[in-house]
Amino acid sequence: MIDYQAILEDIYNNLKLEENKGKVATYIPELSTININKFGIHLNLTDGKSYSVGNFDEAFSIQSISKVFTLTRAFSLLGNDLWKRVDVEPSGNPFNHLSLLEQENGIPRNPLINAGALVIADVLVSILENPKDDFLNFVRTLANDDSICYDEKVARSERESGFRNFAAANLLKSFNNLNNSVEKVLDFYFHQCSIKMSCKQLANAFYLFANHGSCQRNKIHATPSQIKRVNAIMLTCGFYDEAGEFAFEVGLPGKSGVGGGIAALLPNEFAITTWSPGLNNKGNSLLGMQALEQFTTKTGLSIF
Amino acid sequence: MIDYQAILEDIYNNLKLEENKGKVATYIPELSTININKFGIHLNLTDGKSYSVGNFDEAFSIQSISKVFTLTRAFSLLGNDLWKRVDVEPSGNPFNHLSLLEQENGIPRNPLINAGALVIADVLVSILENPKDDFLNFVRTLANDDSICYDEKVARSERESGFRNFAAANLLKSFNNLNNSVEKVLDFYFHQCSIKMSCKQLANAFYLFANHGSCQRNKIHATPSQIKRVNAIMLTCGFYDEAGEFAFEVGLPGKSGVGGGIAALLPNEFAITTWSPGLNNKGNSLLGMQALEQFTTKTGLSIF
Amino acid sequence: MIDYQAILEDIYNNLKLEENKGKVATYIPELSTININKFGIHLNLTDGKSYSVGNFDEAFSIQSISKVFTLTRAFSLLGNDLWKRVDVEPSGNPFNHLSLLEQENGIPRNPLINAGALVIADVLVSILENPKDDFLNFVRTLANDDSICYDEKVARSERESGFRNFAAANLLKSFNNLNNSVEKVLDFYFHQCSIKMSCKQLANAFYLFANHGSCQRNKIHATPSQIKRVNAIMLTCGFYDEAGEFAFEVGLPGKSGVGGGIAALLPNEFAITTWSPGLNNKGNSLLGMQALEQFTTKTGLSIF
Amino acid sequence: MIDYQAILEDIYNNLKLEENKGKVATYIPELSTININKFGIHLNLTDGKSYSVGNFDEAFSIQSISKVFTLTRAFSLLGNDLWKRVDVEPSGNPFNHLSLLEQENGIPRNPLINAGALVIADVLVSILENPKDDFLNFVRTLANDDSICYDEKVARSERESGFRNFAAANLLKSFNNLNNSVEKVLDFYFHQCSIKMSCKQLANAFYLFANHGSCQRNKIHATPSQIKRVNAIMLTCGFYDEAGEFAFEVGLPGKSGVGGGIAALLPNEFAITTWSPGLNNKGNSLLGMQALEQFTTKTGLSIF
Repeated sequence: MIDYQAILEDIYNNLKLEENKGKVATYIPELSTININKFGIHLNLTDGKSYSVGNFDEAFSIQSISKVFTLTRAFSLLGNDLWKRVDVEPSGNPFNHLSLLEQENGIPRNPLINAGALVIADVLVSILENPKDDFLNFVRTLANDDSICYDEKVARSERESGFRNFAAANLLKSFNNLNNSVEKVLDFYFHQCSIKMSCKQLANAFYLFANHGSCQRNKIHATPSQIKRVNAIMLTCGFYDEAGEFAFEVGLPGKSGVGGGIAALLPNEFAITTWSPGLNNKGNSLLGMQALEQFTTKTGLSIF
Repeated sequence: MIDYQAILEDIYNNLKLEENKGKVATYIPELSTININKFGIHLNLTDGKSYSVGNFDEAFSIQSISKVFTLTRAFSLLGNDLWKRVDVEPSGNPFNHLSLLEQENGIPRNPLINAGALVIADVLVSILENPKDDFLNFVRTLANDDSICYDEKVARSERESGFRNFAAANLLKSFNNLNNSVEKVLDFYFHQCSIKMSCKQLANAFYLFANHGSCQRNKIHATPSQIKRVNAIMLTCGFYDEAGEFAFEVGLPGKSGVGGGIAALLPNEFAITTWSPGLNNKGNSLLGMQALEQFTTKTGLSIF
Repeated sequence: MIDYQAILEDIYNNLKLEENKGKVATYIPELSTININKFGIHLNLTDGKSYSVGNFDEAFSIQSISKVFTLTRAFSLLGNDLWKRVDVEPSGNPFNHLSLLEQENGIPRNPLINAGALVIADVLVSILENPKDDFLNFVRTLANDDSICYDEKVARSERESGFRNFAAANLLKSFNNLNNSVEKVLDFYFHQCSIKMSCKQLANAFYLFANHGSCQRNKIHATPSQIKRVNAIMLTCGFYDEAGEFAFEVGLPGKSGVGGGIAALLPNEFAITTWSPGLNNKGNSLLGMQALEQFTTKTGLSIF
Repeated sequence: MIDYQAILEDIYNNLKLEENKGKVATYIPELSTININKFGIHLNLTDGKSYSVGNFDEAFSIQSISKVFTLTRAFSLLGNDLWKRVDVEPSGNPFNHLSLLEQENGIPRNPLINAGALVIADVLVSILENPKDDFLNFVRTLANDDSICYDEKVARSERESGFRNFAAANLLKSFNNLNNSVEKVLDFYFHQCSIKMSCKQLANAFYLFANHGSCQRNKIHATPSQIKRVNAIMLTCGFYDEAGEFAFEVGLPGKSGVGGGIAALLPNEFAITTWSPGLNNKGNSLLGMQALEQFTTKTGLSIF
């Protein structure tokens, strides 16, 4: 029997003392004031048990982790037609998301880089009746928690400083890979990124990906085949140009956000989330990466 | 003695019959309806004589040729400080203006590619009191013709379809290389490109570059050293990724526009302009390039 | 209970009739004469059972599949020092292996692209006493079969036409990332690629990766942690720029070769190999990819 | 009347005192021992007068300046068929000559980057009976000086360290853009680069480019049209990724070499050469660039 609580506490206590906690993201002004010492972990087993440590119950900006939720929603609504507009390959290059997009005629490499997530946002804006409300309700259902909200301040802050996202959206538009206006798509996108969730809420929502598409309330949100594919995309593309490193060191499908969160999972077994706002130079949570590496090493659990 | 009129007529008659006239640019809807058979040439010698043939007196959209005027204005106002924000090297790559911009941290390769022209537009928007009025007056003065105007329809058409320029401006903004708002800079830029001029007016305006900075009315608009440098930039960067080809085949500093115009010059000797709306696959006027090649071959006049 | 034999036969019979079998690789003259109708599958369960169909017992050129064996050998000999000379990230771009290498100062993206495999070859040439003999013995031990051999004709054919590998090796050398001579490293590399194995031999050798580092004779060749990492690299980088697609459609760590072979595995469960010489436009076996996709769909077994 | 001798001396005395003389190239071991204080200038007017200062009479390794001679020879022998195998556009990017070559399917951007010069070398190896002897005689004729020789030590040194040139040649070979063996082409190439000439000899040889194709002995080596085109290529491509800067600051067609030499010219007027072994960070002679800028500024002579 694995003593999960002891393992989480052990990891927490080890890492809490680390001097190098990385750097809080500053490019979204509203996020730059976060306390770098925040650190939480939450683990949900598929058998229903859960374990947690530190600031696991405090909400933070999930940012890019939201891309997994929009992808799941769009994929379940549109099916494989989705892949006409976005590919499923790792992007490889960190520094030139726009370059690749330009070279590849407006087809983003995958749905988890910004350009790809903008295409997914465009799909949802087209299909959903009230895109922002409907999507928020989807996330609330996944997490089984109606208190989850957009953070309008963060959404506004990102709109005011998100020139690179405006550039990407306009470039997509120039390649006819956005059906809605740049403004409308970015409004949705900045909102999806601004969602605030705690480690606990996020682990609840990620239960779906460890459980073949059914959430904790046993509602089916995607087919097992779709979930398997979303997990594959998380593994190959979930950590920017550090996806290979995460697969190598941790060995779980997962997704990070610049708010310092990481959500990961082992199919059939568990969903696990971490939060530590300091990022490494690739934009992934420094302590979060280390916590998950220690977790898979100590438990011997990974997909490989 | 060279019989310039006979040479122009000879070139005109040769090329008029060409079956392959290239393709009219369609990405700006307002420009796509132009008659592909229009063809004019105008030559101004620095000794005051002028020669012309065909539709030399009919105004067309000068588009990117305007970049030489904005560059000259900004350079004369700001001096060498200009080069902190834009380089003077050929871009080499046709297909990835945004890629290069991204890789080189928001410093455009040169002032004659779109990204560079947007930086120049930003400079003028910051310095000029009434940017659009003042710049139009500058062009009118150069051409000694107050009837020259913006074409509001073309400016609007470009605004509505210019997603790639919106992408470039936002990317520049993300690198802090635009001081004004994206909207304001693009409004100026779309207007400068919409200016309508005839071959004759354009050749009058280009007199400056053959005459060390003094226009036909002997007013000094830039120093000889600045004009020498603008001419150098035209030679190395004036024809997108066909700059080398133009230097190789024609051997004159010049600038083309997607409206089908080309303006070129030989220092101390002449300014020459052509207009034929069909473009080759690099976006330069097909017959215009050929006309200028024949002109320098027949006259033996080039900088090389 | 899954009836593996029935599933393999079902897949075999389905695909055997496919009209589009892809195209045999022609860039290595010696390989271009292979019969495109060859098709075999072999499955080894970790419990000892095995199943097979078609030309599973006929040897073919394993080509790039050999990179997994050299990687495993070098990793077990050198440990994590290996990662100073080669990264573990997907390359993303198909068309420009040399471009990436040049931009990233001679550190190949991962050990499964050619440039990375050349660095691994250099490591083995430095460490092994008789590099070619020792490595062949290693593969024989893994597969428990001493009849496995280099194909000298193929090795020679590749040497005579492998200008791109010569280019890569010289570029690595220019960045001081080869310690041995270009000639010596390439001689080893062309030989490793020329190894001939059948589906059955290959599946036997891949048993190791499904079994935490111990081969069928229970000899330990790498630590469980190293095997976990090699599996992660196979998943993210094993199929050139189609790695994401393979993870998405198949969901197993694996490696393909231009000889038409694919070897894949599910940790703790099985190793499976396919051979069909026709390649898709990304250079992976067309029927092999489809066979494995059908296999994981029909059995419901994958890492995701 | 311009007092050329006074101007040269003035420039020489100004620059001689500069503390920052750049850095001697170290990548060819044999060249790294040169005395950084060497500095010479030689000017030949087309009217026959000549002026010089400093170490104008001391031979140095002309390196890439030789590319202009091979280009001229190949162009005069092969005519415009040459342009099927090499383009005439600036390369733009410094750091990725191989990348561009790979992306553009083995057609080098221009004959003055290494890859392009290798194609030119291949042409000469194919056409000339005794390639190395014949080419050396060509240079001797141009310079009217039979004492000019290859420096075998430098050629050997470059062969032993020129891995990047081996990479480029193999890449060209893989695209079928070399007809001779890599070895043979590189042997010729390393020899052409090793030629030793003084500023005076080099200025004599460059007389041709200022004189429409006729050398000082009035022998015609290329047509005026060919020379005009070679001059155009020098202007747009002669200084690596600083070609724009050289056109901008100096305004003359020219070519630099990593041995510290620069040769430039004004058609109909003069050929001028400089030698100072310290290079700037783009690989061009630091003082040489400054000397030529001062020369065109002080004399008011440039093509612009």
